[in-house]
Amino acid sequence: MKDLVAVILAAGQGSRMYSGLPKVLHSVAGQPMLDHVLESIEALEPERIIVVTGFMSEKVREHCGKRAVCVNQDRRLGTAHAVRQAIPHLNKFKGDVLVTVGDTPLIQTETLKELIKRRRAHQVAATVLTTELDNPTGYGRVVRNRDGTVRKIVEEKDTNVYEAAIKEINTGIYVFDCQKMLEALRRVGNKNAQKEYYLTDTIEILGRLNDEVEAMVADDPTEIIGVNSRGDLARAEAFLRRRIAAAVMEQGVTVIDPATTYIDKQVQIGRDSVIQPFTILQGRCKIGEACEIGPHAHVRDSVIGSGSNFRYCTIEEAEVGDNVSVGPYANIRPGTRVGSDARIGTFVEVTRSSVGDSTDILHLSYIGDAEIGNRASLGTGSVTVNYDGKRKLPTKIGDDVFLGTNTKLVAPVEVVAGTRVAHDEILTGKIGSVSPSASGTSKTKARAARKRR
Amino acid sequence: MKDLVAVILAAGQGSRMYSGLPKVLHSVAGQPMLDHVLESIEALEPERIIVVTGFMSEKVREHCGKRAVCVNQDRRLGTAHAVRQAIPHLNKFKGDVLVTVGDTPLIQTETLKELIKRRRAHQVAATVLTTELDNPTGYGRVVRNRDGTVRKIVEEKDTNVYEAAIKEINTGIYVFDCQKMLEALRRVGNKNAQKEYYLTDTIEILGRLNDEVEAMVADDPTEIIGVNSRGDLARAEAFLRRRIAAAVMEQGVTVIDPATTYIDKQVQIGRDSVIQPFTILQGRCKIGEACEIGPHAHVRDSVIGSGSNFRYCTIEEAEVGDNVSVGPYANIRPGTRVGSDARIGTFVEVTRSSVGDSTDILHLSYIGDAEIGNRASLGTGSVTVNYDGKRKLPTKIGDDVFLGTNTKLVAPVEVVAGTRVAHDEILTGKIGSVSPSASGTSKTKARAARKRR
Amino acid sequence: MKDLVAVILAAGQGSRMYSGLPKVLHSVAGQPMLDHVLESIEALEPERIIVVTGFMSEKVREHCGKRAVCVNQDRRLGTAHAVRQAIPHLNKFKGDVLVTVGDTPLIQTETLKELIKRRRAHQVAATVLTTELDNPTGYGRVVRNRDGTVRKIVEEKDTNVYEAAIKEINTGIYVFDCQKMLEALRRVGNKNAQKEYYLTDTIEILGRLNDEVEAMVADDPTEIIGVNSRGDLARAEAFLRRRIAAAVMEQGVTVIDPATTYIDKQVQIGRDSVIQPFTILQGRCKIGEACEIGPHAHVRDSVIGSGSNFRYCTIEEAEVGDNVSVGPYANIRPGTRVGSDARIGTFVEVTRSSVGDSTDILHLSYIGDAEIGNRASLGTGSVTVNYDGKRKLPTKIGDDVFLGTNTKLVAPVEVVAGTRVAHDEILTGKIGSVSPSASGTSKTKARAARKRR
Repeated sequence: MKDLVAVILAAGQGSRMYSGLPKVLHSVAGQPMLDHVLESIEALEPERIIVVTGFMSEKVREHCGKRAVCVNQDRRLGTAHAVRQAIPHLNKFKGDVLVTVGDTPLIQTETLKELIKRRRAHQVAATVLTTELDNPTGYGRVVRNRDGTVRKIVEEKDTNVYEAAIKEINTGIYVFDCQKMLEALRRVGNKNAQKEYYLTDTIEILGRLNDEVEAMVADDPTEIIGVNSRGDLARAEAFLRRRIAAAVMEQGVTVIDPATTYIDKQVQIGRDSVIQPFTILQGRCKIGEACEIGPHAHVRDSVIGSGSNFRYCTIEEAEVGDNVSVGPYANIRPGTRVGSDARIGTFVEVTRSSVGDSTDILHLSYIGDAEIGNRASLGTGSVTVNYDGKRKLPTKIGDDVFLGTNTKLVAPVEVVAGTRVAHDEILTGKIGSVSPSASGTSKTKARAARKRR
Repeated sequence: MKDLVAVILAAGQGSRMYSGLPKVLHSVAGQPMLDHVLESIEALEPERIIVVTGFMSEKVREHCGKRAVCVNQDRRLGTAHAVRQAIPHLNKFKGDVLVTVGDTPLIQTETLKELIKRRRAHQVAATVLTTELDNPTGYGRVVRNRDGTVRKIVEEKDTNVYEAAIKEINTGIYVFDCQKMLEALRRVGNKNAQKEYYLTDTIEILGRLNDEVEAMVADDPTEIIGVNSRGDLARAEAFLRRRIAAAVMEQGVTVIDPATTYIDKQVQIGRDSVIQPFTILQGRCKIGEACEIGPHAHVRDSVIGSGSNFRYCTIEEAEVGDNVSVGPYANIRPGTRVGSDARIGTFVEVTRSSVGDSTDILHLSYIGDAEIGNRASLGTGSVTVNYDGKRKLPTKIGDDVFLGTNTKLVAPVEVVAGTRVAHDEILTGKIGSVSPSASGTSKTKARAARKRR
Repeated sequence: MKDLVAVILAAGQGSRMYSGLPKVLHSVAGQPMLDHVLESIEALEPERIIVVTGFMSEKVREHCGKRAVCVNQDRRLGTAHAVRQAIPHLNKFKGDVLVTVGDTPLIQTETLKELIKRRRAHQVAATVLTTELDNPTGYGRVVRNRDGTVRKIVEEKDTNVYEAAIKEINTGIYVFDCQKMLEALRRVGNKNAQKEYYLTDTIEILGRLNDEVEAMVADDPTEIIGVNSRGDLARAEAFLRRRIAAAVMEQGVTVIDPATTYIDKQVQIGRDSVIQPFTILQGRCKIGEACEIGPHAHVRDSVIGSGSNFRYCTIEEAEVGDNVSVGPYANIRPGTRVGSDARIGTFVEVTRSSVGDSTDILHLSYIGDAEIGNRASLGTGSVTVNYDGKRKLPTKIGDDVFLGTNTKLVAPVEVVAGTRVAHDEILTGKIGSVSPSASGTSKTKARAARKRR
């Protein structure tokens, strides 16, 4: 959107979090609350995003990186005082200023866009996002004029009995005409119960300046849940999770129980895949069609083909093909690539390796720094000796290799395509090829290799 | 029940499922919705069950097998048109026709039985199952006469404002006098918003023919949840799970948290067993008394004795005795039988094997195709070499055998009862018996065996 | 509190539990209901706690041990009859008698304390704890006088229509002036629907004796949930779990999803620790700050330092230092101590052992009865042969030892500090030290050791 600047208030310590971390850096659904708010705003493509930091400002600034300009509020003297810190960046700006808070991780781009559109369409000085709560205790109340425009917002501690009974509350999210906001900001004082400069006072001030303010009522009060405690954090997490699960199901994915499934925002899942309980899909995942993921699967930042079947396993930063079966009790670690139709079985760990198509590693194995071809079969207890105490060394296993039970691969080692190795061999160097039928020769060669070590 | 035929409407694609699978074949609590409906109806013992197929009719027909007669609805022209496909099977039939839909997996036999009884007792042309919803949007409304009989059912899209306000809705489940239904069906037209032949029109038609129709209100609206989306599927799953957990608890089983426990319908559990969280009991399981199952146990199609203790493990198609302890991190695969008082420990996998009473396999082992006697002890790292790349070969371990750490059993192999094997042996062929005290001899023999290979 | 005796009614069988266990011994949140009630009362420091046993009285008496005096109610003739069994211990007592039931595991000390204070402050004969329920069916109703004092309590089965409509119910928890209670108890008869001696009758009797009885309404009805079925048990468990999770979060701990996290009462967790889903923290645990526990972690009776990271693992009766990483798929068993900065990896089991600071055991290992120094590295497949079929034997590994892949440690064995062992060695006896660079020598020595066995 053109002519738009966003200001995010993120100075609070969040004392009720009892934490060493600034409040906005606490995570919901796998990422800090501030990132959720930033994402929602970035989708609006504003000219600039300004984050007002305060508590542990360096940490928040560092976290924002290039995503926003940070301004520091040295002393916490209220929300109007916070917005004032952004004035150097707003002085000459003639568009809309979207003011939000950094602790409402569920806010959605569509709602913000609608709020901006309303202000522009109705040509009012500001539009306030409000919502209605059965129990408004703790929130600023929205006092309307007879014509429906907003007269003022009264902080909880300053309400009289009539105002306290109002159920429409302020969400802390506004769109202002920038120059009118600046005009009003200059006039905000601190004569109130808290001795603070309230941004909410700008609303009444605009009225006195003969400007109109409107309110837009958010349909879904959960969208503007503000997080002030770890309990709020858990509630926001639950709502966000429910929203993501609903979206995933709308795309043709079966989620057996959304209440015991944790799916991050950036996860994509293909049609007719089934997500079983106790499953966690984190970060940027892309999962194909007709997969069965879980129960008890944990996939992070991975790409999975179609028709694959993962249960009781962890898979991180890996790439897995079609029709692959993993688990139960397998650990696929970063830097692993598994081809199609492969099987990674029980008590098998694979790291920094590639496993070819139709290859089996089924029992009690540890494979690190290996490159394994297609149609290979690694017996029970296959272990790469890939670390000599100093360096990680490579293992190479060709196509159609058959390794018997309890094979130790002392890297660097290469097993030539088609080789058949008997059980209990220790392999190192280059292990020769024979036809699969001539397994006796293979054993001899393998033993020779063993003696060489 | 005599004089009863059931018709299940199962032609729909379920476009809001965004799926390649016909809607009624989507699973709830481990089996397709259609199977839940079939089970509820089969318990009534009707003379015949007719399933009207449509979308992917071959797949549905194949799934039904001998459980039902399938008739195909080539074009989807409405529910009346669907029932008309069954006419060849109903022409001469003089009893009740129960018409149901295939996407209400929670419907219970008792409710259907009551519906049929009511029609018979009151001698009306039809009895409609209805329920009352606070928000009836999306459902056909039930319009009653002053005497309480049903005048008509109006589809959502054809309602006027008065009808739209009615909270009593049609569930799509009816019992008809067969001949009267056929009479009415002939008169159903398609002059409505959707240009479809509605089965609901038969109700008004029967009234015009001077026949009475009654409604029976289902107490529990969850019982007739129709599934039209993956979200509905998850909701139906949750309700069914809650119903099963309540029934299990009523039989004297403690379920620590029904919200994180998944128990299929056919699972039987004995008194005073405790089901810990994150546990899945699937298919046909029979679990004894005073067991502790879970946390994190997955049992499928297995029989478990009393007093057994399973945690962090998967057990499939197995038979396990009394007082057996399994896990954490064990995988018992199909075709396994475990005797009483045995222990299967950590990182242990057993497949297609029998394990005798009081036998221990405690650490890092893979046992396949083995027959193990009673009171045996298999050390850490016991591994059967049961596959030579072509065939699965058998291992036999007698009673009271003690295998030291890291024993490899190269099948075919037999370890005679009472044999004591030192650590790091590779055994094949027949391994001889000595008294437990003469372990030195045993070692020698075992080594001899090793050299023979 | 001085001048206080507590009586807990715990005689019931709990026939709706369908159990072989007395009702009060069924567990909620990891301990029997009776223990929860005992704990709440013990915190009041009464002069004596009397438990009235009945069904399986020996088992309940044994369970109570020295925590309470048990009196047996041979025949179950009602609650007044139950309290009468305690008369020998109350005859000369002039203080307060707190009467509670053993099946309300959520009752809190603060509520009981307030109840006692009220009776004392208002100098009434008794104070009854009540609560208000929307649906009071099944509970005794509280009938008040015009001045707000309690006139009588009417059991459900004896209510008239007016009484049945009362929503204030009896919780079964009272504080009496002891001598007045004894006076009233003597007059209780059994002319009622059940032919039982009701303790509730004492209220009306006290009124007739011109004594006043007051009621104190519990704010939170969940606190007095009585458990009569396994369904009630699951509900009480859920409420208690929610209460504990809320308290944990109030202390600055993030619980990602309280609905899938199970934390026992005595667990202490430091600030900014994060508890991931599918995690169980049982018994007496003390967990440091900024830990990441879970997903899928199970910790019982253990002490964990700060900054540690446990996932997909079980840890029982262990002590773990700071910045330790455990899992996925690790099993740390009782009697284990792990130093700081250590790593216990995948498919690793450790039992009755100590692992030094910065030591790594990363893959497919079983370590039992071992004492391992600092900065050691145990390769894949490190296994202690700690059991010879009769005894457990010790393993000692010094600081800075490097064990190659597949090392078998045949106990008793000592690997001297700084020793570097190649792969596939079998070690026993004392294994000598060489400088890390002279690994060849090390191999030779290790092999010599192997031959010696």
